[in-house]
Amino acid sequence: MHKDAVNNKKDLIETDAMTSITIDCVIFGFQEGSLEILLVKHAEGISKGKWGLPGGWIKKKESTDAAAYRLLRELTGLDKLFLEQLKAFGDPDRFPLDRVITIGYYALVKRENYRLKAGFTASEVGWFKMKDIPDLIYDHNQILNFSLRHLRNRIRQAPIGFNLLPEKFTLLELMHLYEEILGIEMDKPNFRRKILKMKLLRDLNEKQVGVSHRAAKLYSFDEKIYHKLTEKGFNFEF
Amino acid sequence: MHKDAVNNKKDLIETDAMTSITIDCVIFGFQEGSLEILLVKHAEGISKGKWGLPGGWIKKKESTDAAAYRLLRELTGLDKLFLEQLKAFGDPDRFPLDRVITIGYYALVKRENYRLKAGFTASEVGWFKMKDIPDLIYDHNQILNFSLRHLRNRIRQAPIGFNLLPEKFTLLELMHLYEEILGIEMDKPNFRRKILKMKLLRDLNEKQVGVSHRAAKLYSFDEKIYHKLTEKGFNFEF
Repeated sequence: MHKDAVNNKKDLIETDAMTSITIDCVIFGFQEGSLEILLVKHAEGISKGKWGLPGGWIKKKESTDAAAYRLLRELTGLDKLFLEQLKAFGDPDRFPLDRVITIGYYALVKRENYRLKAGFTASEVGWFKMKDIPDLIYDHNQILNFSLRHLRNRIRQAPIGFNLLPEKFTLLELMHLYEEILGIEMDKPNFRRKILKMKLLRDLNEKQVGVSHRAAKLYSFDEKIYHKLTEKGFNFEF
Repeated sequence: MHKDAVNNKKDLIETDAMTSITIDCVIFGFQEGSLEILLVKHAEGISKGKWGLPGGWIKKKESTDAAAYRLLRELTGLDKLFLEQLKAFGDPDRFPLDRVITIGYYALVKRENYRLKAGFTASEVGWFKMKDIPDLIYDHNQILNFSLRHLRNRIRQAPIGFNLLPEKFTLLELMHLYEEILGIEMDKPNFRRKILKMKLLRDLNEKQVGVSHRAAKLYSFDEKIYHKLTEKGFNFEF
């Protein structure tokens, strides 16, 4: 939530938004081997100058999912991205001015598609590596930690990690993504053997260009198998 | 929600509850090899005479978790039970009279401990087998289906299924629990070997009494290992 609940009561009535319930979103990106989170610096209200998760109000006539998509579109300009609800965060003291329950979401963004949209109400927007996350407003550190545990759990069961990678990627980039999210080190030949066996990847018969090291083969993932596995659920055992 | 949102606005102000956000709870029990759900028949309001999930309002000064525990205590008289949030259900048309978002929870109850508490406002309360679930009010069938998918997923990763069994149980009862929740048939010797290997169970050196068939050995689960596995997360592969 980037504004002040009490100051905005009038705005809320005018925009026909729900009071006492908001949405906050953890946006994950993956850049140069690091998992990053998009944070916004609040421009006004009691949290002015502090970083927090992007979020906002829910209009009375839109679903919570639609509200989350709208907020992300307003922030990133992206229409199609991976978005899922985490859960509701309902500690009575989580917001200092009033009782506000927030519904947490998380999104996975391909950094190559990401474009920050001008005109967003936050004064500043930035990507932060996990180890550089500052002290966030309200319970946003707690929501962020929950989302990371959830993401770790989800990428073992569904190949949603591909939503963080460019369209064409190397096996090493894919392995680094899993290593970074799960916080473990993997054995490259072992990873290569297991991931190719899943038949999730399409060999593009292309190689990296403009790299100083030996160019590696590029892959994309097979959307049909991806959807089948996502629906059915499976287990990545590395 | 067992009452009518509009009729109760006055009650809400008096009890200092939040408006436009409620809690609904899927309570699972396990009886004679069948997974069952506790439903309440609504005594008043627009849904009078229809079955639905037990639920209610959130007080302004209690957390959503505390509200869910309170509602379950009011309904079942039980203080200690397994309870987890599912997610928020936020379709704008889910409740016909007003915009109300509900936070879904699910609870696992040992039927031997369960006692229906008198004085609950619903006119009737009953356990329903999954195949006998009637057409429920609002989006409660959707919440119930979501909770079942969630439960299937969770019992593969954490030994939470024990919360549905009596303190002392046979291996066959445990296998039937997994078969019923996962909707699959299992091989008994295979199940026996795998579950004993996990060292989750304590052999009580006791046998069933008063059964017509050959009395089977009784087990309880080892609470220490249970908590370790629940925290760490693991995978039941049957």
